[in-house]
Amino acid sequence: MKKLINRPDDVVREELAGVALAHAGRLVVHTDPHWIARADAPVAGKVALVSGGGSGHEPMHGGFVGPGMLDAACPGEVFTSPTPDQMLAATRAVDGGAGVLHIVKNYTGDVMNFEMAADLARDEGLQVEQVVIADDVAVEDSLYTAGRRGVGATVLAEKICGAAAEEGRPLAAVAGLCRTVDERSRSMGVALTSCTVPAAGRPTFELGEDEMEVGIGIHGEPGRERRPLASATEIVETLATAVVADLPFRAGDEVLAFVNGMGATPLMELYVVYAALHRFLEESGIAITRSLVGSYMTSLDMAGCSVTLLRLDDELTRLWDAPVDTPGLRWGA
Amino acid sequence: MKKLINRPDDVVREELAGVALAHAGRLVVHTDPHWIARADAPVAGKVALVSGGGSGHEPMHGGFVGPGMLDAACPGEVFTSPTPDQMLAATRAVDGGAGVLHIVKNYTGDVMNFEMAADLARDEGLQVEQVVIADDVAVEDSLYTAGRRGVGATVLAEKICGAAAEEGRPLAAVAGLCRTVDERSRSMGVALTSCTVPAAGRPTFELGEDEMEVGIGIHGEPGRERRPLASATEIVETLATAVVADLPFRAGDEVLAFVNGMGATPLMELYVVYAALHRFLEESGIAITRSLVGSYMTSLDMAGCSVTLLRLDDELTRLWDAPVDTPGLRWGA
Repeated sequence: MKKLINRPDDVVREELAGVALAHAGRLVVHTDPHWIARADAPVAGKVALVSGGGSGHEPMHGGFVGPGMLDAACPGEVFTSPTPDQMLAATRAVDGGAGVLHIVKNYTGDVMNFEMAADLARDEGLQVEQVVIADDVAVEDSLYTAGRRGVGATVLAEKICGAAAEEGRPLAAVAGLCRTVDERSRSMGVALTSCTVPAAGRPTFELGEDEMEVGIGIHGEPGRERRPLASATEIVETLATAVVADLPFRAGDEVLAFVNGMGATPLMELYVVYAALHRFLEESGIAITRSLVGSYMTSLDMAGCSVTLLRLDDELTRLWDAPVDTPGLRWGA
Repeated sequence: MKKLINRPDDVVREELAGVALAHAGRLVVHTDPHWIARADAPVAGKVALVSGGGSGHEPMHGGFVGPGMLDAACPGEVFTSPTPDQMLAATRAVDGGAGVLHIVKNYTGDVMNFEMAADLARDEGLQVEQVVIADDVAVEDSLYTAGRRGVGATVLAEKICGAAAEEGRPLAAVAGLCRTVDERSRSMGVALTSCTVPAAGRPTFELGEDEMEVGIGIHGEPGRERRPLASATEIVETLATAVVADLPFRAGDEVLAFVNGMGATPLMELYVVYAALHRFLEESGIAITRSLVGSYMTSLDMAGCSVTLLRLDDELTRLWDAPVDTPGLRWGA
């Protein structure tokens, strides 16, 4: 195992210490239990957004805390759900009086713990809504999931709902919008290499020098099939064909295309993938009107990528374009 | 070789096609010869900044084109200097009447070709200044370099000089500032794995499962020594000790600390490194007042990191904080 770490057990704690130091004044990293909040939370009168999940997917979610996106994020240990006390503490602290939306990726542990936290928060009189994101078309049910896994659409939902919350929309509307983003999004990924969990010290799965895993999960869960390594264009055809057919996306659709790196894939390759995706969709009559290319939802040191498409409308486009100011995603008005 | 590419010979061309499509309206990618310009270039009355170098270091330099940073970038083939005709075309096109600054990393091919381009531009009556960045303390002379290699300080110089140019400072002042950033910056890197050049198809160098290369160059050039893999804290001590001793940085200094990923290193590990660097500098009485953590100057799929320190003053800090709006670096006022 080759990693820039100290003791495997200390990785998350030390990472969060680094986040706290690097983003002091913008983010506050609470310990015992761990959660990350925007420095100006709670924002009075604004619906608060809380997400979270296992660590190892950075910048998701802690890197998406800030104006225009999340109010708080709860990091678990590597590939391990955060605990209900983390979510409860975050929910209490960032509630600005307009209620709290939990955005949850569909993994059994995450869903269970977020539900428990929501119940406890409601017992305390807080208004909490939850939306589970499940956009991965690769498989039904998986190693850690009943139903579809939640992947790239989570990033898009956090950005778009963050903008809606900043506009002062009520909780039910922001939650409804989050469901809309989930319903209109589909994703699929491919791994060229496994990831290595620090505490395990060896690759999560074995993949031959000429093999790739199509439909990989973000924790290295098995995908649809193992295939000989293919060209970027062929890989995009495989991923995009599955994604397009599932919703389905149709000629005339306008989409946000998100090419996501899995952690060890250079930006150079992601742009090659993006060019191939653009060609593929153009031939299908689907127009990319917004895009995101980079490593936003990673799987430790896995090499590979995922493709997410979101069918846009004017409102989603406007909310996507709204200002956001987080360490991981940032643009102006 | 496991990469998301098509034919190795087409990587740069296809990557640039992806950049053009993903950032349409903000960047213009010119072909034959290749160069990337901000969409609103030339900006009348503003000193124009042009940089460039081999591809494989993305987001540097193309990702740093935009308001507040570069006016144009010239990408060469992978790890290969761009040609003088690229730099000449870019220089001509982005000159807004106030002259052009070339920011050049110290590699023999880059320096020679930028000098040739500057001579040709001056023959056409353009005002051109050049600053060569040489901040890598690891080695004197190297595989592709006479003197020290130019690494992380290039990113900082492009940002800080970009801000000065936006303020309307004259060419001599912007060039002087660029020399100041170079003089006040020092860097050193470490590789945990080699990179693989697409056209070569195999790792540039061999590194054992328990080894790391200390003082690595961004093309995989040999560093100071090969050592057994160490902890993040020990690696930071090695890098930061060399960097601090070289300028030297002293107790009481305020610095910008830049922890850079080499392409295949997850953000999680870079924050662990940043936390260790913060501890190290604190013990030396050196205060980090600005920071940058991420993969900004990469070496294809190399795993590893580099540490750059820049001794700040009020002016450099103010220029660092000024708005920047590029695909690779972006923040508001």
